Amino acid sequence: MSIAIIYGGTRKEGNTEILTKHAIQGIEVEEFYLRDYRILPIEDMRHDEDGFQDRGDDYASTIKRVLQHDTLIFVTPIYWYSMTGTMKNFVDRWSHSMRDAAFPDFKAQMGTKEAYVIAVGGDAPAIKGLPMVEQFKYIFEFMGVEFKGYIIGKGNKPGDILEDKVALFQAEQLRKKL
Amino acid sequence: MSIAIIYGGTRKEGNTEILTKHAIQGIEVEEFYLRDYRILPIEDMRHDEDGFQDRGDDYASTIKRVLQHDTLIFVTPIYWYSMTGTMKNFVDRWSHSMRDAAFPDFKAQMGTKEAYVIAVGGDAPAIKGLPMVEQFKYIFEFMGVEFKGYIIGKGNKPGDILEDKVALFQAEQLRKKL
Amino acid sequence: MSIAIIYGGTRKEGNTEILTKHAIQGIEVEEFYLRDYRILPIEDMRHDEDGFQDRGDDYASTIKRVLQHDTLIFVTPIYWYSMTGTMKNFVDRWSHSMRDAAFPDFKAQMGTKEAYVIAVGGDAPAIKGLPMVEQFKYIFEFMGVEFKGYIIGKGNKPGDILEDKVALFQAEQLRKKL
Amino acid sequence: MSIAIIYGGTRKEGNTEILTKHAIQGIEVEEFYLRDYRILPIEDMRHDEDGFQDRGDDYASTIKRVLQHDTLIFVTPIYWYSMTGTMKNFVDRWSHSMRDAAFPDFKAQMGTKEAYVIAVGGDAPAIKGLPMVEQFKYIFEFMGVEFKGYIIGKGNKPGDILEDKVALFQAEQLRKKL
Repeated sequence: MSIAIIYGGTRKEGNTEILTKHAIQGIEVEEFYLRDYRILPIEDMRHDEDGFQDRGDDYASTIKRVLQHDTLIFVTPIYWYSMTGTMKNFVDRWSHSMRDAAFPDFKAQMGTKEAYVIAVGGDAPAIKGLPMVEQFKYIFEFMGVEFKGYIIGKGNKPGDILEDKVALFQAEQLRKKL
Repeated sequence: MSIAIIYGGTRKEGNTEILTKHAIQGIEVEEFYLRDYRILPIEDMRHDEDGFQDRGDDYASTIKRVLQHDTLIFVTPIYWYSMTGTMKNFVDRWSHSMRDAAFPDFKAQMGTKEAYVIAVGGDAPAIKGLPMVEQFKYIFEFMGVEFKGYIIGKGNKPGDILEDKVALFQAEQLRKKL
Repeated sequence: MSIAIIYGGTRKEGNTEILTKHAIQGIEVEEFYLRDYRILPIEDMRHDEDGFQDRGDDYASTIKRVLQHDTLIFVTPIYWYSMTGTMKNFVDRWSHSMRDAAFPDFKAQMGTKEAYVIAVGGDAPAIKGLPMVEQFKYIFEFMGVEFKGYIIGKGNKPGDILEDKVALFQAEQLRKKL
Repeated sequence: MSIAIIYGGTRKEGNTEILTKHAIQGIEVEEFYLRDYRILPIEDMRHDEDGFQDRGDDYASTIKRVLQHDTLIFVTPIYWYSMTGTMKNFVDRWSHSMRDAAFPDFKAQMGTKEAYVIAVGGDAPAIKGLPMVEQFKYIFEFMGVEFKGYIIGKGNKPGDILEDKVALFQAEQLRKKL
């Protein structure tokens, strides 16, 4: 099993990253820090005569590498009760890949994968993070990805997550499965 | 009452825009097409010694104008079961404005406003759009914005929304309130 | 198409009933006022040696008649952010029917049906009624019932619903489909 | 701190009860097994001239004892993606207590309490149990009860819950707080 970690955070070594590192300790993974790539918002050209146009950024090369893995772990701090805009832009672009001759089997390929979500939020995330979990559920459902589980931790200031014993324990349980 | 329409769509004259134009027919509003501005993802520098840095894009001038209105209408096609990345980036940046000396009363000012959401989706939006509505609810709640209502229409191909009689009726009812 | 209306309300001629009558005007339906039947809470005996026992109430005869219809309309005032306990007891009992020799094809039969939900609430139902809609979605999904749509109206005092123009319009649109 | 455990399950020693016993090991609590009381569905008489009528069952004496505690733990197996009908009937009756001269300060008294929810479900409860969590959130919010946390375990057959290590760990963490 080959694992891709897709980081949507915009702060280095934020709580969500710390929690994820705890989960993948000693496990071989490929890590994608989306903030280090140039990934533009989608421009919806589904209904244009010529269809979607290449946006000349890092999206295509990134998704190509992500596709080589079996397990995708989406890691995002909770910004405004959902994934970061940085991660959302990445997901939005899938609408292009689904119609891109360069990715002839995009949806079918994604449909063979399984996914986890790891998120940390500061404002009652166990409750107010639930719409985000449901959003991921619908995303995975649409793509045929199996949603294997999620961890929602609590943290605000740097390092807070180390106080969230349940999240750390869940990370350890996840490690055993990976 | 002064009204700002904040468009998150990336396609000109998409279904969500058609539905919104139906709602604001004959009403004076200021329109913000986010796709026409350069609004970068936030970089979370809350915990940096020097705090957030200016990103040199169109965000500050845009939010400044938005703030001058009493009623905010957030208009977004449903991309992957939530607002577009384009709109999410705009909202994410509020985290900076709340800590920006250039906007000393950002949260207090936002807290005087009322908001509506207009969205159109193609995949069972009356059900699968609900997590997005809840996200907006939490966003508004956090900012003290009064969430006055929402319209979720159904549409996929250009013009589909004109078949959604309930959404059109809701748009007309909204028009009477504006 | 044969239609069953399943009323969960405990007040005669409440707002939800008024809204539903508006939707079914001039249409032949069979109406089930659950409050008029004796339907006890389920006793979970799945794991007992002898399985579920007959509870000697009106459930079996009621569900038998409901099963004869193709379209089920679940009508409930929103009590504490979900269906009434009266209606919940009725649904809970399905767990027995699925294991009851008297209903050998219960799930398969349910799986041929389509359903609507009509609900009225007093406390911001367009938002706070959403978890109930999701519960119904999962219930129908589990049973293989097609969830064709829902109407959530707003009302508290008797007759309030007549002021909810959108709900009334939705009821009229539903009428055309039935 | 005085603790009431309110059990909504209808099977003795079900998974939810096992999980709860694990959480309250060695702690003094008062336990209410709702299945052992006769608690009828509410009859909504808010708008009747004479208001609600006493239903002559065990509700009043039960809620009176519950009110004497500071912390309420609601324990329910997930039936059809929400609390059991047995527990729902109990909660529905609060609408009467709020208008009952015998409970002059019902809402104010409830508003001093804090609450937890412990639930176990068999069908992807970490996802499909979320609407139930949101429903409890709104219930507590309405009453002014502080929602301190919840545990959702996974289990179907008797004893399954002992395999859910995360739920057991959460129960142990909860124990430390009680």
